[in-house]
Amino acid sequence: MAGNEIGAVIQLLSKLPGLGPRSARRAALYLLHRRETVLAQLSTALALAAEKVSACAECGNLDTSDPCGICRDEKRDRSKICVVEQIADLWALERAGVFSGRYHVLGGTLSALDGVGPDQLKIDKLVARATAPESREVILATSATVDGSMTAHYIADRLAGLKVTVTRLAHGVPIGGELEYLDDGTLSAALKARRPS
Amino acid sequence: MAGNEIGAVIQLLSKLPGLGPRSARRAALYLLHRRETVLAQLSTALALAAEKVSACAECGNLDTSDPCGICRDEKRDRSKICVVEQIADLWALERAGVFSGRYHVLGGTLSALDGVGPDQLKIDKLVARATAPESREVILATSATVDGSMTAHYIADRLAGLKVTVTRLAHGVPIGGELEYLDDGTLSAALKARRPS
Repeated sequence: MAGNEIGAVIQLLSKLPGLGPRSARRAALYLLHRRETVLAQLSTALALAAEKVSACAECGNLDTSDPCGICRDEKRDRSKICVVEQIADLWALERAGVFSGRYHVLGGTLSALDGVGPDQLKIDKLVARATAPESREVILATSATVDGSMTAHYIADRLAGLKVTVTRLAHGVPIGGELEYLDDGTLSAALKARRPS
Repeated sequence: MAGNEIGAVIQLLSKLPGLGPRSARRAALYLLHRRETVLAQLSTALALAAEKVSACAECGNLDTSDPCGICRDEKRDRSKICVVEQIADLWALERAGVFSGRYHVLGGTLSALDGVGPDQLKIDKLVARATAPESREVILATSATVDGSMTAHYIADRLAGLKVTVTRLAHGVPIGGELEYLDDGTLSAALKARRPS
């Protein structure tokens, strides 16, 4: 059917999360029908990204410079470090525009099941950063899952002796969330953490 | 947040059918975490496809050669032309491996709503191919939609004076289809076209 070049495109696209063989074929046809525009642009953009993007040695963020744009930004608060599991979480916080400090990307969570121990995550580097004189607060923004909470506990223990304040994201009813549809764990957390109105 | 190079990749990926902004970000991160392997390969494969793939002047298929591999294949039956709306349909028939003739890709269907007339489709080229002495049969394999049926009728009219036999795909119960879940149109078509068992 399709030539080898087309087959290679389909096979590689089908590896992307969210695309199966069927949608990879659709995406490939979409691109092949737009050879001069989207296809050529995407090929160039990917080549540039492959060449220029690397992980920031300081925080683990991906950027075209090392240290990354966030770590180099003099306007950002150098006293606060927000610890996230992965880059997607960092992007989500940056999109929300609610945090003006710097980040630390762990690269995952501790997981007994998947055999991920402290050495696989960038925890030593975090401890080193938290020890630096300008550090005042470490915000643990791991996910509210079993592994995320365990990782946060472990990090809090590791940071216990240092002079930084260690905080965690609040748990409770999400904005726009209807009580009727919330799970027991969230309701319980929201009730426990209730505040005077 | 992300550098310009990463933003460009996300923006282009989000144009692909089946990917929105959210899944484009996931796909971009997937690629950026596999810079040496998948990302570099995909970039190269896309560049090769952009450079080498073109439409077959004979049948409209996309391939790295013109005429395409199917049109050049001497083992295929040159007396039969299967008319499809788009290349995805040609790929589906080739995957099924049920047709050994050649194809003709119309590039869409006639559509009063979208303002697609006969001049926008490769119908003149089809008539020319059907007029060639080796042509015996034209199989109309357009979709069983209103526009697809109208297009098939129009083509059948255009081919009426020629010495080729014009046939259409059978309509009926799809293999594996349960009667309970079929629509009225399919049931009606299957009943009308019933055959002695």
